[in-house]
Amino acid sequence: MFLTRSEYDRGVNTFSPEGRLFQVEYAIEAIKLGSTAIGICTPEGVVLAVEKRITSPLMVPSTVEKIVEVDKHIGCATSGLMADARTLIERARVECQNHWFVYNERMSIESCAQAVSTLAIQFGDSGDSDGAAAMSRPFGVAILFAGIEAGQPQLWHMDPSGTFVRHGAKAIGSGSEGAQQNLQDLFRPDLTLDEAIDISLNTLKQVMEEKLNSTNVEVMTMTKEREFYMFTKEEVEQHIKNIA
Amino acid sequence: MFLTRSEYDRGVNTFSPEGRLFQVEYAIEAIKLGSTAIGICTPEGVVLAVEKRITSPLMVPSTVEKIVEVDKHIGCATSGLMADARTLIERARVECQNHWFVYNERMSIESCAQAVSTLAIQFGDSGDSDGAAAMSRPFGVAILFAGIEAGQPQLWHMDPSGTFVRHGAKAIGSGSEGAQQNLQDLFRPDLTLDEAIDISLNTLKQVMEEKLNSTNVEVMTMTKEREFYMFTKEEVEQHIKNIA
Amino acid sequence: MFLTRSEYDRGVNTFSPEGRLFQVEYAIEAIKLGSTAIGICTPEGVVLAVEKRITSPLMVPSTVEKIVEVDKHIGCATSGLMADARTLIERARVECQNHWFVYNERMSIESCAQAVSTLAIQFGDSGDSDGAAAMSRPFGVAILFAGIEAGQPQLWHMDPSGTFVRHGAKAIGSGSEGAQQNLQDLFRPDLTLDEAIDISLNTLKQVMEEKLNSTNVEVMTMTKEREFYMFTKEEVEQHIKNIA
Amino acid sequence: MFLTRSEYDRGVNTFSPEGRLFQVEYAIEAIKLGSTAIGICTPEGVVLAVEKRITSPLMVPSTVEKIVEVDKHIGCATSGLMADARTLIERARVECQNHWFVYNERMSIESCAQAVSTLAIQFGDSGDSDGAAAMSRPFGVAILFAGIEAGQPQLWHMDPSGTFVRHGAKAIGSGSEGAQQNLQDLFRPDLTLDEAIDISLNTLKQVMEEKLNSTNVEVMTMTKEREFYMFTKEEVEQHIKNIA
Amino acid sequence: MFLTRSEYDRGVNTFSPEGRLFQVEYAIEAIKLGSTAIGICTPEGVVLAVEKRITSPLMVPSTVEKIVEVDKHIGCATSGLMADARTLIERARVECQNHWFVYNERMSIESCAQAVSTLAIQFGDSGDSDGAAAMSRPFGVAILFAGIEAGQPQLWHMDPSGTFVRHGAKAIGSGSEGAQQNLQDLFRPDLTLDEAIDISLNTLKQVMEEKLNSTNVEVMTMTKEREFYMFTKEEVEQHIKNIA
Amino acid sequence: MFLTRSEYDRGVNTFSPEGRLFQVEYAIEAIKLGSTAIGICTPEGVVLAVEKRITSPLMVPSTVEKIVEVDKHIGCATSGLMADARTLIERARVECQNHWFVYNERMSIESCAQAVSTLAIQFGDSGDSDGAAAMSRPFGVAILFAGIEAGQPQLWHMDPSGTFVRHGAKAIGSGSEGAQQNLQDLFRPDLTLDEAIDISLNTLKQVMEEKLNSTNVEVMTMTKEREFYMFTKEEVEQHIKNIA
Amino acid sequence: MFLTRSEYDRGVNTFSPEGRLFQVEYAIEAIKLGSTAIGICTPEGVVLAVEKRITSPLMVPSTVEKIVEVDKHIGCATSGLMADARTLIERARVECQNHWFVYNERMSIESCAQAVSTLAIQFGDSGDSDGAAAMSRPFGVAILFAGIEAGQPQLWHMDPSGTFVRHGAKAIGSGSEGAQQNLQDLFRPDLTLDEAIDISLNTLKQVMEEKLNSTNVEVMTMTKEREFYMFTKEEVEQHIKNIA
Repeated sequence: MFLTRSEYDRGVNTFSPEGRLFQVEYAIEAIKLGSTAIGICTPEGVVLAVEKRITSPLMVPSTVEKIVEVDKHIGCATSGLMADARTLIERARVECQNHWFVYNERMSIESCAQAVSTLAIQFGDSGDSDGAAAMSRPFGVAILFAGIEAGQPQLWHMDPSGTFVRHGAKAIGSGSEGAQQNLQDLFRPDLTLDEAIDISLNTLKQVMEEKLNSTNVEVMTMTKEREFYMFTKEEVEQHIKNIA
Repeated sequence: MFLTRSEYDRGVNTFSPEGRLFQVEYAIEAIKLGSTAIGICTPEGVVLAVEKRITSPLMVPSTVEKIVEVDKHIGCATSGLMADARTLIERARVECQNHWFVYNERMSIESCAQAVSTLAIQFGDSGDSDGAAAMSRPFGVAILFAGIEAGQPQLWHMDPSGTFVRHGAKAIGSGSEGAQQNLQDLFRPDLTLDEAIDISLNTLKQVMEEKLNSTNVEVMTMTKEREFYMFTKEEVEQHIKNIA
Repeated sequence: MFLTRSEYDRGVNTFSPEGRLFQVEYAIEAIKLGSTAIGICTPEGVVLAVEKRITSPLMVPSTVEKIVEVDKHIGCATSGLMADARTLIERARVECQNHWFVYNERMSIESCAQAVSTLAIQFGDSGDSDGAAAMSRPFGVAILFAGIEAGQPQLWHMDPSGTFVRHGAKAIGSGSEGAQQNLQDLFRPDLTLDEAIDISLNTLKQVMEEKLNSTNVEVMTMTKEREFYMFTKEEVEQHIKNIA
Repeated sequence: MFLTRSEYDRGVNTFSPEGRLFQVEYAIEAIKLGSTAIGICTPEGVVLAVEKRITSPLMVPSTVEKIVEVDKHIGCATSGLMADARTLIERARVECQNHWFVYNERMSIESCAQAVSTLAIQFGDSGDSDGAAAMSRPFGVAILFAGIEAGQPQLWHMDPSGTFVRHGAKAIGSGSEGAQQNLQDLFRPDLTLDEAIDISLNTLKQVMEEKLNSTNVEVMTMTKEREFYMFTKEEVEQHIKNIA
Repeated sequence: MFLTRSEYDRGVNTFSPEGRLFQVEYAIEAIKLGSTAIGICTPEGVVLAVEKRITSPLMVPSTVEKIVEVDKHIGCATSGLMADARTLIERARVECQNHWFVYNERMSIESCAQAVSTLAIQFGDSGDSDGAAAMSRPFGVAILFAGIEAGQPQLWHMDPSGTFVRHGAKAIGSGSEGAQQNLQDLFRPDLTLDEAIDISLNTLKQVMEEKLNSTNVEVMTMTKEREFYMFTKEEVEQHIKNIA
Repeated sequence: MFLTRSEYDRGVNTFSPEGRLFQVEYAIEAIKLGSTAIGICTPEGVVLAVEKRITSPLMVPSTVEKIVEVDKHIGCATSGLMADARTLIERARVECQNHWFVYNERMSIESCAQAVSTLAIQFGDSGDSDGAAAMSRPFGVAILFAGIEAGQPQLWHMDPSGTFVRHGAKAIGSGSEGAQQNLQDLFRPDLTLDEAIDISLNTLKQVMEEKLNSTNVEVMTMTKEREFYMFTKEEVEQHIKNIA
Repeated sequence: MFLTRSEYDRGVNTFSPEGRLFQVEYAIEAIKLGSTAIGICTPEGVVLAVEKRITSPLMVPSTVEKIVEVDKHIGCATSGLMADARTLIERARVECQNHWFVYNERMSIESCAQAVSTLAIQFGDSGDSDGAAAMSRPFGVAILFAGIEAGQPQLWHMDPSGTFVRHGAKAIGSGSEGAQQNLQDLFRPDLTLDEAIDISLNTLKQVMEEKLNSTNVEVMTMTKEREFYMFTKEEVEQHIKNIA
């Protein structure tokens, strides 16, 4: 009586008989094709470490940006379709700026994630109330938000369904399955920032196909003192040497 | 002469020969994939108790919000697609604010449910009269509204078809079938609030796959005295201990 | 040379080779899934009696509204999709208010039915001249209008094709076939209002699956003296006792 | 090389290889499901006689309107989808009013038919120049216009293709085939109005399934002296007696 | 590798692999279902003669208009879908009026044909620059324009592809194939107007199924002296007698 | 795993797996159904010679325009769908006028071709920035632009893909394959204008099915001295005699 | 349970079950049909060398532009659909002009690439925030940006997915696979500009089907001193001689 699953999975916004939205589930699959990104939250700050895919030796690795600054107190790492990521990041930046302008205070990380989520779930609609053009499909991107709020570090994760939840540690992208298991084994709420950096690089090392080096990895820390801080090649190399 | 059922179920707004709208029925199925939520109305107040699905031990459970405040006198629990829930809750909040601003009185719980229902049934249209963008499919979410009106506690339930009805006690989500049976066996109109809390937790305990604890359960009471009150981890633990 | 019927029935606004519009016919089928409603017009006034489906003992029956007031002199009972009904009723109320405001007189029941019909037949269009959003399918609801016009009671019926006709007595909903036969056997133009109430309840009794009681039945009378009057639980019980 | 006919007949506005528009032809079929209407033009005036389908003995026959007044000097009978008929009639009335207002003279019957035709052929377009919403399918209705112009009676016929032509006598609806043959046998340009009434009733008698009576037939005359005049039940009965 | 022709012929605006637009070709087929019209240009003036299809003896033939006046100096005969013809004629009239109003001179016949062609080729677009609604399919009509320009008679022909070319003599409609052959045999640039009238009626006589008479034929001449002149029944009969 | 080519060729704007846009390729096929046109550029000026298809001896050949003036210094010959050609030519004329009005200088031939190309490649979009309505398919027309720029003659060619390139000599239309070969054999950069005229007519002679005469051929020269100059029948005949 | 890949590849914006967007991948295939272009960045400047496809000896090769100037300090080479390329280049030019006008400084090459990328990823949307019309498919073009920023030469590459990355050397188009391998073998960060020119021409020589000459190759250098400089035929010939 029912059609098989495959009959429902092309409508971007159609329920299957079991109440599932397949295009959203497929968008989540798109993340599994992306590069791996890892976030760990410690009392000292948050660390984001991401894999950079250097498909050609003639690429300039520093221009493959996987970790970007949203506001002074919020940074984020993305995995999935890069063009989609840029659209969501742009929204995050605008919302943070507006919040600062209107309320003269920093936007909370949760509010920032919510603003991005609001855009992410509008696919299939004819446009949102701000006059912005809507997507005709779900965004194929997952985001890790690292931020400082009231002096406390926070790590949030958002997926293509628009769901955002705070985490102690989280891995996204093609190696996320193995990485997440590793994080669960090693994460303690009282990690030091340095321990977290080593764990994140160690985890990347295990799930990346290529050998870890200062070119194919990017590390950022978000701390109360220095806020958004991207590691230099030398600092990354030093940490890679540490975990060897 | 007729096509089988499966030929009609992908048009979001097409009648089958028996006069059924399958996409709405499938949206109702989406609720059955959601977490279980239970509401019980007593003369002392309403209690809402919901299951929280903590899919990873590294999640911060307090950021998975299943019970939210709409207005001081109205709270609600949702089950189904979280992103859809947020859109409907946002509408509920705006309507309550407008009502207060325009009439200088609290919105009734029924009016609030009706306002949300009006939005819920507009899917497939090209937009509503308020200029808001319409959904291209039914909302995949069910809501329990708990409120105080003229000093009396009320519990309302709304499903994806936009139907809203007042209940003495109601369960929604994946465990709703068993839970509803349990509620029918135990509900009395003269329950005390404490009895209701115990019944709701006991019911969740029976239908949840995981062991009940203060992390994967959220409890809220809506009483005339304290209005919207979310239980602390300690209070939840105390009640779980009570029913053991 | 022709396709079978089933090939034409999914286009909301396409003629079959015989000149039929199947989606409208299927919408009429939707009424047959709805609760039964009965209207009888007598010289003393009109009575509307409807079945209320109480699907759970924990529902608060009084919040399942099947009979509503449109204006002081017009009430109506609906059967079919409740969300669609609400949209049509809303239009009826607005039109009555406008009529009163503009002409300082009560809108006739026929004009009120016509205004609702105008909305009902616009499905498939891109919008009506009032800027309101159009439905993408026919409304799946039938309505009985009971009113007082120039001191005379009137009963009108409108179906999903937008056709509205005045009746002496009319049944709609899942039990309408048997009920209509019963009404034809018992209806006389000179019935008293009390006789009409008893006939309507008796008819409901025969077509309803559940036993008739003051919870699952709603009765309203529209008379010149009292206009829209909804019976109390006690009055309903009294009449049920009468017909036993 | 060509597809069979059935492949082209669902596109509302697509030519078949032979240059036919099937949806218009199917709309013409819709008229053949409608009630029969007959118009006869005599030097004394025009008579319109229509069958009324009283599907239930509890219906109030006078509220089934098949003949309506467009302007004092133009009346019309319709057959087919009643909701579509109402839209076209409304347009006819507005055009007549505008004509009177702008030119201070009565609109000619041909101009009135042309105005309706203009609306009828716009289906499938995105809207007409007056900002009115367009139909997404042809109108499923045929119209007989009876009018007085410069003291002379005229009878016009319009079908779903928007074609309008003046006739001496014309039958539309389910019995039109037999009725038209009868009219061709009996029509003379010099008929008296009374003869025409009798011919029209006699023709209806032959093609209607039910026995002719004052309830299921409506008769209207359009004469220079009395203009639009709807017969009373007694007058209809008298004429039925005449032809017995 | 290629699909057969039939796969491309339903898209109104899609090229087939050979670069053909089938819907336009099918619209040209629609002309072949229409009544025959003939135009002959002579130094004295242009004659248009058209077949009128009187499908019922009760029709008033004079109201079947196949030849209409566009401006004092331009008349035209159409064949194909009458409703489409009216839309194009309306455009021709408006353009002629505007030209007169703006430039205080008569529009040339070529410019008039071009203006109609511009409208005819816009099908499938979302609207033209004048804000008018566009057709969703090609117009199924061919037009013969007869006019006087700078004292000289001209005959132009336009088909559904929007192509317009001046002719000495041209036949359109169901009998056009045989008629065109006849015209080629008999046409001389130095024909007198009377000879042209006789040739056109003789040609119609050969291709029409019914016997030629003053009821089923319409004749118009466009001369410098009398401009647009429609023949009376008597004049038509006289000419028919001439050619007998 | 892949579909065959035929599955992709109906979407006007969809890539096939090999990255091809079939509708554009089919539009290019449409040119091969058109009449042949030839352009040759010499130091003295450009010559355009085109075939005119006189499908009926009763056509007035001079009204079949295949070579038109865009501006005093730009003329063009088209092949393919004539209605599409007219739209593009209209755009060319408007752009030239605007350029003159704004900059008080003649538009370059390349800029003119680019302006037409910009319009040509917008098919499938919802409209261009100038508010003009967009085509729903590629334009089925190729254009040869002949112009004088800074005293130097230039010949440009544009095809349905919007590509425009300058040529020494170019043939388009149904006979283009053979004609282009002929031009390659005979073209020299130092041809005199008279030689070029003879080559173009000789080439047409070889690829046209009908015998070359002053009726079915049109010749235009664009020189610094006379600019756009269309040959008279006598001049064409003279040149045909020359090459005999 | 799943459909094969081919079922998903026609929806321009639909995810396949593995999370892939096939239309974007097919657009990338379109690049492989384009002419080869090579860019090499050296400390002295960037060199762009492109193949020009001269499909006819009568074409004027200098009008086939594959390398264009965006701003004084940015030039770019494109491969793929030329019409799409022009749209993206136009956007690049406008953005550079605006940047200069607003900030009175040169736009960075990365910002310029980002602006183009923003336009490239909007396909399938209903329009962007600047009111420009959106594409209904991905752009089928790849771009190499060569620029000088703060005195330093930079080379960037953008593909149809909107991804842009800086490179030391990069090849695009039909010969890109072999060419890229060659570049990897020969590229050193300390190349002189002359060495880079020779490498780029040598690489083109290996992948082009035709023999390299000053007609079918275009060379441009972007240096701090001369900025955008297109080589003359003589200079190209000289370099071809060098590498022989």
